[in-house]
Amino acid sequence: MRKIKSKLNALVNDSHTKWGARFAYTIQALIIYSLVTFSFSTLPNLSKGTLLFLEISRYATVAIFSLEYMVRIWVAENRWKYIFSFYGLVDLVAILPFYLSMTIDLRSFRIIRVLRVFRLIKITKYSKAIKRFKYAFKDVKEELVIFLTATLFLLYISAVGIYYFENAVQPENFTSIFHSLWWAVATLTTVGYGDVYPITTGGKIFTFFVLMIGLGLVAAPAGIIATAMEEAHKAVPDKDINIQSTNTQKELMKRKDKKSN
Amino acid sequence: MRKIKSKLNALVNDSHTKWGARFAYTIQALIIYSLVTFSFSTLPNLSKGTLLFLEISRYATVAIFSLEYMVRIWVAENRWKYIFSFYGLVDLVAILPFYLSMTIDLRSFRIIRVLRVFRLIKITKYSKAIKRFKYAFKDVKEELVIFLTATLFLLYISAVGIYYFENAVQPENFTSIFHSLWWAVATLTTVGYGDVYPITTGGKIFTFFVLMIGLGLVAAPAGIIATAMEEAHKAVPDKDINIQSTNTQKELMKRKDKKSN
Amino acid sequence: MRKIKSKLNALVNDSHTKWGARFAYTIQALIIYSLVTFSFSTLPNLSKGTLLFLEISRYATVAIFSLEYMVRIWVAENRWKYIFSFYGLVDLVAILPFYLSMTIDLRSFRIIRVLRVFRLIKITKYSKAIKRFKYAFKDVKEELVIFLTATLFLLYISAVGIYYFENAVQPENFTSIFHSLWWAVATLTTVGYGDVYPITTGGKIFTFFVLMIGLGLVAAPAGIIATAMEEAHKAVPDKDINIQSTNTQKELMKRKDKKSN
Amino acid sequence: MRKIKSKLNALVNDSHTKWGARFAYTIQALIIYSLVTFSFSTLPNLSKGTLLFLEISRYATVAIFSLEYMVRIWVAENRWKYIFSFYGLVDLVAILPFYLSMTIDLRSFRIIRVLRVFRLIKITKYSKAIKRFKYAFKDVKEELVIFLTATLFLLYISAVGIYYFENAVQPENFTSIFHSLWWAVATLTTVGYGDVYPITTGGKIFTFFVLMIGLGLVAAPAGIIATAMEEAHKAVPDKDINIQSTNTQKELMKRKDKKSN
Repeated sequence: MRKIKSKLNALVNDSHTKWGARFAYTIQALIIYSLVTFSFSTLPNLSKGTLLFLEISRYATVAIFSLEYMVRIWVAENRWKYIFSFYGLVDLVAILPFYLSMTIDLRSFRIIRVLRVFRLIKITKYSKAIKRFKYAFKDVKEELVIFLTATLFLLYISAVGIYYFENAVQPENFTSIFHSLWWAVATLTTVGYGDVYPITTGGKIFTFFVLMIGLGLVAAPAGIIATAMEEAHKAVPDKDINIQSTNTQKELMKRKDKKSN
Repeated sequence: MRKIKSKLNALVNDSHTKWGARFAYTIQALIIYSLVTFSFSTLPNLSKGTLLFLEISRYATVAIFSLEYMVRIWVAENRWKYIFSFYGLVDLVAILPFYLSMTIDLRSFRIIRVLRVFRLIKITKYSKAIKRFKYAFKDVKEELVIFLTATLFLLYISAVGIYYFENAVQPENFTSIFHSLWWAVATLTTVGYGDVYPITTGGKIFTFFVLMIGLGLVAAPAGIIATAMEEAHKAVPDKDINIQSTNTQKELMKRKDKKSN
Repeated sequence: MRKIKSKLNALVNDSHTKWGARFAYTIQALIIYSLVTFSFSTLPNLSKGTLLFLEISRYATVAIFSLEYMVRIWVAENRWKYIFSFYGLVDLVAILPFYLSMTIDLRSFRIIRVLRVFRLIKITKYSKAIKRFKYAFKDVKEELVIFLTATLFLLYISAVGIYYFENAVQPENFTSIFHSLWWAVATLTTVGYGDVYPITTGGKIFTFFVLMIGLGLVAAPAGIIATAMEEAHKAVPDKDINIQSTNTQKELMKRKDKKSN
Repeated sequence: MRKIKSKLNALVNDSHTKWGARFAYTIQALIIYSLVTFSFSTLPNLSKGTLLFLEISRYATVAIFSLEYMVRIWVAENRWKYIFSFYGLVDLVAILPFYLSMTIDLRSFRIIRVLRVFRLIKITKYSKAIKRFKYAFKDVKEELVIFLTATLFLLYISAVGIYYFENAVQPENFTSIFHSLWWAVATLTTVGYGDVYPITTGGKIFTFFVLMIGLGLVAAPAGIIATAMEEAHKAVPDKDINIQSTNTQKELMKRKDKKSN
């Protein structure tokens, strides 16, 4: 029994072994398969055959993911710790909507099944490359928070300003500050759908000033992340991460201390 | 009396003490609360109960901010200096529209109350993290001015050019150079609402050239700020800013001198 | 015979000789000429004279490119290696559609001739400057893959989310997750055509969050490439690339090793 | 006479003297004034009084600029050299349209007066700060050319591709490859006016791939300029440019040599 448990643990948790890697890739492929079939099932006017195929796919993937979930609970050293860990909850959320849809009102079915998308998050569990992105993100977290705060400030001020200029002329588009916030989001991110835009001269001049201040503010985080990614590239090398990473990070810390001294 | 004044001064001006921090956080929460209620009050078709609640909130927050303003004047070492300082004026502007709306014509009420948004600026007073942004901004101020000037140049030239190409065909959209400037702003910032766009072949080719030159120009400041933020991160460390900052800045100045020598 | 072959080889493959350079420039000019005439031939309502001229141009360029292709095969040391090399295939694809259009159904003609655009890729063969871009691209390939993956993740999640919010209200625009993906692409790239946009409050708030997370993600690769280009500028100097490049790259590798140690 | 000439030369060419600076600022103010009045004159439905005022302004500024032009010729050491120098030609172009409009057909008047915008370029003559931008631009000229070329490639390929997908369904928007190029420009720059966009599934998927490749390509130059501006900041210090610049540039060259060795 112990031996089986140990082997299963290696299978589901250690992707460095031959079968562990095969298992991980299979689960990843299944997640993507379930996402694709889910996407297809939202298409209107599907034939009966297609619907049946999609339904079978849904049952099959849920069955496999449920089995995987139970194995993971069984082989875990500390079972409650796994269940309430981030990936434990994600694993549960990935299968829960299926079972819930059977017991509760079927009309809310469509909304609940959207939760199935959380299966996607499971992929991050296996992806080694994302570690680098996490490192870079951690490194510049504070700068990103500052810029996000400044962006929120500017969004609010822009919304109040444009509300003042446009509300009288376009009450249907700039009904309240909340409606104006939608304009502020679409404008400062430069998406500019064109559903709402200023038509008064004052509003247009205000938009000009908001954009002159705002473009640098909203676009800066991308540049900050880009620079951080470069450092993360050095800190997290391509070779073996598990062994070297701690040393490399220590060195990086030292280098940082030197800089700030 | 002196003791009370000293204690009140610590309360409103020193956020490092236990009660000073509590006071600062309470005021910040109140500012955000007043902004949210102000935003809600712009919604149409509010029920009588909601309107009453919003009105009471308005009176209450103004009362607290007024009290805070008077305390700040009382405890200030140099009272006129505080009153005419940037934050002294912001504190006044944050409550003034309320009192003004009582004495002057009520119909202009809506416009004046927009000034209430200036309460927002008070938040910067307490925010420690913004210091870094200020540092970065100061460091690249000149570059930003150059790019802003170049952007203004390009905006004007673009407006004149497109006016020449499109005025004859779309006199309602490209009525004058001022109208064309609105197109130039929406295009060079890549917002592109879609309310005005060239339809002549000449105008489209001109837009192509303007964008090829302009994209780098308009987007560059974001990159410049991003690089500056990285240096600000080193210059203004996370630890204690008040003690170290002067030394760190001196060092940075030295490093800069070395570079430019 | 050998001498002619050797001379022809120098002509078509060595752009460092006087006639080799002339040949390369002539072919480049012809490629651009054929692209321009191809573009013109898509214009509607062309006069008979113009059509005749365009047709003659098409025959002439294909004849020259065919001759060039045959010479290249003849002078190649290893003929099959050339034919199945990337540029060998491009050279073939650049002339093949012409001959195919003569034998197969003429109505599919228009679609196949679009393949003529592959002639464009031939230009890269001669362009020395593109080496630098290749170097930079190779240097940051991994980071770009991570960001592209993250972007694909976000696109899918955004599409599912907006589908949930908007499908009930705008079934014609957000018909399925695939339709919603189109919205996600247009929004996260900040293109924002304005053909599809959220109209529900929930959808707008969701868009706000997606953009706050997504802007940095989608725009970061540009910053990463920009930084890599700077390093490529140092690694691939303007002087002679063929001789120095290996040494320079070795040095760069050393420098990198030092950094990562 | 010599003394007057020498004094006038100092006045118009040396902005370091007290009166030279005053003169330069006055001319700059006049240029902006003439641009503003020119912009106003394009507004429709102007009153007779305003038109008269704008006309007088036009005569007055042209008179002053003509006088300045003649003085510049008179004081120049080598007169023909000045006349055919860049700024000499700009000075001429700034006043020429006024005189030309008097002799030739008045209906072409509107088009010619657009040339008055060239007066704007005169401002660069006096602006010291722009030197830095020029330095940065020179430093990364090659990279910008590569990216511009790559952008042009991608624009053409995108246009051909979308033409293939959309021409059959939207012949009015994607009439020819030239029409499709307009879509490619609006899309790859992320302006996205919304006047033309793909509606076929194939066209939308193609747009997705084009944007994934193109965003980094089109946005990269901004990042490259941003990095170059930082180096330009070090190379061209704030102090005295005329004396130090040569030394600083020499040093920079040395530093560059070290890097590339």
